[in-house]
Amino acid sequence: MNVRVGVIGVGMIGQDHIRRITQVLTGGSVTAVNDVDAARAGQVAAVLPGASVHATAQDLIADGNVDAVLVASWGPAHEEQVIAAIGAGKPVFCEKPLAPSSAACQRMMDAEMAAGRRLVQVGFMRRYDAGYQAMKAALDDGGLGAPLLMHCAHRNPSVPDYGFTTDMIISDSAVHEMDIVRWLFGEEIVAAAVLRPRRSGQAGADLQDPLILLLEMASGALVDDELFVNARYGYDVRGEVVCETGTVALADVSEVTVRTQHRYGGRVPVDWRDRFIRAYDAEQQEWLNAVAAGTSTGPTAWDGYAAAAVTDAALGALRTGQRTAVSMAERPEFYAK
Amino acid sequence: MNVRVGVIGVGMIGQDHIRRITQVLTGGSVTAVNDVDAARAGQVAAVLPGASVHATAQDLIADGNVDAVLVASWGPAHEEQVIAAIGAGKPVFCEKPLAPSSAACQRMMDAEMAAGRRLVQVGFMRRYDAGYQAMKAALDDGGLGAPLLMHCAHRNPSVPDYGFTTDMIISDSAVHEMDIVRWLFGEEIVAAAVLRPRRSGQAGADLQDPLILLLEMASGALVDDELFVNARYGYDVRGEVVCETGTVALADVSEVTVRTQHRYGGRVPVDWRDRFIRAYDAEQQEWLNAVAAGTSTGPTAWDGYAAAAVTDAALGALRTGQRTAVSMAERPEFYAK
Amino acid sequence: MNVRVGVIGVGMIGQDHIRRITQVLTGGSVTAVNDVDAARAGQVAAVLPGASVHATAQDLIADGNVDAVLVASWGPAHEEQVIAAIGAGKPVFCEKPLAPSSAACQRMMDAEMAAGRRLVQVGFMRRYDAGYQAMKAALDDGGLGAPLLMHCAHRNPSVPDYGFTTDMIISDSAVHEMDIVRWLFGEEIVAAAVLRPRRSGQAGADLQDPLILLLEMASGALVDDELFVNARYGYDVRGEVVCETGTVALADVSEVTVRTQHRYGGRVPVDWRDRFIRAYDAEQQEWLNAVAAGTSTGPTAWDGYAAAAVTDAALGALRTGQRTAVSMAERPEFYAK
Amino acid sequence: MNVRVGVIGVGMIGQDHIRRITQVLTGGSVTAVNDVDAARAGQVAAVLPGASVHATAQDLIADGNVDAVLVASWGPAHEEQVIAAIGAGKPVFCEKPLAPSSAACQRMMDAEMAAGRRLVQVGFMRRYDAGYQAMKAALDDGGLGAPLLMHCAHRNPSVPDYGFTTDMIISDSAVHEMDIVRWLFGEEIVAAAVLRPRRSGQAGADLQDPLILLLEMASGALVDDELFVNARYGYDVRGEVVCETGTVALADVSEVTVRTQHRYGGRVPVDWRDRFIRAYDAEQQEWLNAVAAGTSTGPTAWDGYAAAAVTDAALGALRTGQRTAVSMAERPEFYAK
Repeated sequence: MNVRVGVIGVGMIGQDHIRRITQVLTGGSVTAVNDVDAARAGQVAAVLPGASVHATAQDLIADGNVDAVLVASWGPAHEEQVIAAIGAGKPVFCEKPLAPSSAACQRMMDAEMAAGRRLVQVGFMRRYDAGYQAMKAALDDGGLGAPLLMHCAHRNPSVPDYGFTTDMIISDSAVHEMDIVRWLFGEEIVAAAVLRPRRSGQAGADLQDPLILLLEMASGALVDDELFVNARYGYDVRGEVVCETGTVALADVSEVTVRTQHRYGGRVPVDWRDRFIRAYDAEQQEWLNAVAAGTSTGPTAWDGYAAAAVTDAALGALRTGQRTAVSMAERPEFYAK
Repeated sequence: MNVRVGVIGVGMIGQDHIRRITQVLTGGSVTAVNDVDAARAGQVAAVLPGASVHATAQDLIADGNVDAVLVASWGPAHEEQVIAAIGAGKPVFCEKPLAPSSAACQRMMDAEMAAGRRLVQVGFMRRYDAGYQAMKAALDDGGLGAPLLMHCAHRNPSVPDYGFTTDMIISDSAVHEMDIVRWLFGEEIVAAAVLRPRRSGQAGADLQDPLILLLEMASGALVDDELFVNARYGYDVRGEVVCETGTVALADVSEVTVRTQHRYGGRVPVDWRDRFIRAYDAEQQEWLNAVAAGTSTGPTAWDGYAAAAVTDAALGALRTGQRTAVSMAERPEFYAK
Repeated sequence: MNVRVGVIGVGMIGQDHIRRITQVLTGGSVTAVNDVDAARAGQVAAVLPGASVHATAQDLIADGNVDAVLVASWGPAHEEQVIAAIGAGKPVFCEKPLAPSSAACQRMMDAEMAAGRRLVQVGFMRRYDAGYQAMKAALDDGGLGAPLLMHCAHRNPSVPDYGFTTDMIISDSAVHEMDIVRWLFGEEIVAAAVLRPRRSGQAGADLQDPLILLLEMASGALVDDELFVNARYGYDVRGEVVCETGTVALADVSEVTVRTQHRYGGRVPVDWRDRFIRAYDAEQQEWLNAVAAGTSTGPTAWDGYAAAAVTDAALGALRTGQRTAVSMAERPEFYAK
Repeated sequence: MNVRVGVIGVGMIGQDHIRRITQVLTGGSVTAVNDVDAARAGQVAAVLPGASVHATAQDLIADGNVDAVLVASWGPAHEEQVIAAIGAGKPVFCEKPLAPSSAACQRMMDAEMAAGRRLVQVGFMRRYDAGYQAMKAALDDGGLGAPLLMHCAHRNPSVPDYGFTTDMIISDSAVHEMDIVRWLFGEEIVAAAVLRPRRSGQAGADLQDPLILLLEMASGALVDDELFVNARYGYDVRGEVVCETGTVALADVSEVTVRTQHRYGGRVPVDWRDRFIRAYDAEQQEWLNAVAAGTSTGPTAWDGYAAAAVTDAALGALRTGQRTAVSMAERPEFYAK
């Protein structure tokens, strides 16, 4: 079966998903696009044979040639678009964050529960990275004992001097670790705290960079997450889970080792795309497969909600300097694992 | 465009290519199958919606619903099948080796040259491995100076005790290095020699395992290739090119590093599929893309011919114990780089 | 010149230093020993040609055949012994901790300042480890920019089930990081906090193991130190300093890489002796050299005092759960770098 | 006991040994020196309290204040000096090569056998390197099965453009691998061959650089040794032994890993001293200990003889281009392991 996908939001991320569905993955095609910038939507559709352009997200969702919806618009628009797709009974893939507030995520879950089946997948692509998958397999194997701690580092080479705020380090960068540790540990995060190390002279004047985010898991396991968006030397995502009888860590990803000028070593990825392109491919392929099979896999609206709730707590911790408990609803039976 | 592929030979390799085209790649579908074992062909086709089964390779090639042919039959059948595909003007992907003899390869080149355009791609998938690609990029970059030497190791955990001969270590295993060093160095191999180290007690009684194959390049650069098909500890392909001012080597491929029981380290691949699955995916996708575009990329019939000529020399060297010159025709203009 | 060393305290550590001076290093000999256990002192001296046994530390210090004193007794005895050595005008090497309280350390500094020259070296041997020295060289080189953060892990395979308290994780284990970060960063620690992750089931019932100790440097740089005394898999000391444009981390120390049973990797040290034996050798040789030259190098009484002050703060933080400021005197000019 | 050492030959190597005995090791002192350059001998002795300068090696050997002799003169002088020391009944450490010809080595063995006890240790210091020792332990442990192959690389950054000949790559560089593989495998080398890869443009016009030396062990195990004296990027000695069920390789020796400018990695040693300084220290300390104990350990005159015999074969192979058998006497019972 070929899944006909309608894409809402054709900025950088949306266009990358279209390229992926069209040129890399199997079982899908893009049949409709929509964007707040109608001209941009038109340009994108012009090179997609047979794709129509819709003036509104609602029109796209209603299109009979659209089997499933991919939401890559900006965050504040997600709620209305995802709920509309649910209303139309169409599977919807929504880029992270699911919504800017946990209340909005709650309304999306309510809509999905009312529809009676899971239709929403959230774009936490790290779960599809070969490194994190091997890490999870090592933990689930049990040979290392219970996980007690995780050390994470999330380093970007740089961010724009203007427009990128300290809050965004939490909501845009750290949200990836929030999801991945919930998935790796198989439990919820119950509290967050934020530490403020010495600021880098490479960071914009108003940015607290780097940060350390501390996350407490329900079991008491503790995660420290170094967030450094002006690390300069490359895009480097690292993690080590410390268990009762051993540890497991992400390996470096260089394909070759070079020896020259008194050094040996490998390359550090250039950016997130370089590092995680295969994870995006695997994520989208699994989604297309699930849609074709009429099933649902991957991160759910509950996962999007949980990340939003932890983000709220972490932003509170950033503001107050205090450890802040995560405020979350009970996990509905509908979202049981 | 969707490329309709007819698959000749649906053993293990053929079935894996079918799975790939059907479930992993984009732009292709399998519309016809043929196998010397008609029952097997039928079983495979049964789960391919719309695919027809042909009694002969010729019938499959003639099928109007077949745009391109994938040959995964046994080696001795390749010549007739590939030449038939050429005759029908259809692009043909042929698994390695292109043919068991360089004479057969020469006839296939003649047919292709007569047809006036490149239709044949040979299945040397290592060229699509991210490790070898990064290695080639490092060499082509020039920063390391001219390549002088390459050390290779090609280790399989085991081979069947019966039926696997020492000749096959050359013709089935070493053929991969023969192609990859031609591609990495951008030049032909001019001579081969074979050394016989102490035999492993883990090897079958009639097998000279391990072997060292020495290959001399036209520039004088030298390649030593350890071939060890009962290495037991895993599937391990390694390589280091030594240049005038530095070296570049394939890195280990483990996704994670585990620390436990007084050791740290990573995993070694289980088998060739584990190690090179992504290379196969990339190889086939590029082929489908080229077919769709009406172009030709990837290893050519000339590459298949060259590997066959070097295999001949290496088998001679194995028999005689002597350094053996490679006997090759001039590279036709048709196959200029 | 041969430095005649008197050793006070001949338990495990003291005997190891005697072995080192006698069998490994140059320029020193052990001419006198003392221990609270007179029988043990006698046994140790019996195999040291020409060494005398003294009934009291005071007698040993007064011995005309003793040029310099090595204090390896238990912590509470250090103050009196070190001050006596200072009083006798003899150089004294004192094992860490210099004293159990910062007040005691202050009195030792007062005595040394009154004597008018530096006579005390404290046994912070990590400063002599090749790894930490290379790390410091990389930081001092300046090419990585200012240091902002350091991640440390200090893992022991196990501790005795009884007698080892959570306080000792701070006072005996973490004291090494307290000193090394002061030395690496070239500044004082101003505050400490302690986090309590999920307890390992491998730890004794009363032990909070692992711990995370947070140390704030005067510049605002932040250190997180995982302390895990039942890590089981080996003795593993790790560290990464994150700077403005790059990072530097301790490398693994295995001499060889083994590939077997589907894994590649190296060994993790067995215990602290295995890991740091060369650092102890270098430390003691430098001390002997300095004594012979009539100079003083290495960690000073001020360093011992600072570590004691930070230990006080960290123990307070452990008890209260609060960030605790380090209370320290001004650095006297006498101890200027 | 203090071993009083007389040093014959105080060029770079001799002076380094004097520094080591005087400033690093325990249990030895330098009491006499001799050199063909009397002025140099005088300068060296001037800073060695109590050391005498002898006009001839014979005088030094006869000196009653000399317990043991260290020969660091040039190779052609070794025979006479070592035999004289044997004649005087004094232990003698002789730098490698023991002598320029196997015939000379044979005469030295004859003298030692006539003396009735082992007095000679040859300076093959790699046996004392922590990496090779861990490698040997892994082989002797038996867990990897029998050794079948060894891959070596011996890379120097550069050699002088004039005066350094291709023969010296064999006699000065490769001699280290000749000894180390005999020691690792516990058997003799029976044949040698030399391959000539593409020459580096960085090498002097008359130099065949790099070379590959092939060594056949008595068991049939095969060693390939890349010798590259203008590798430019650093001093890099590598080795991997391939056994029946696994391999063991020397690890990189960098103390830290640095991440900067899109790369991670470690340093390559600058030169042989940087790489093997600790091996020299351990070698000399063991020699001093053995002399003091009246015993003999370490590489023997037989090992020096065997290396000379293999060097002869390898130089023959370099000249003729042919595999050349090693011509060696039977191992005398006197030199049984």
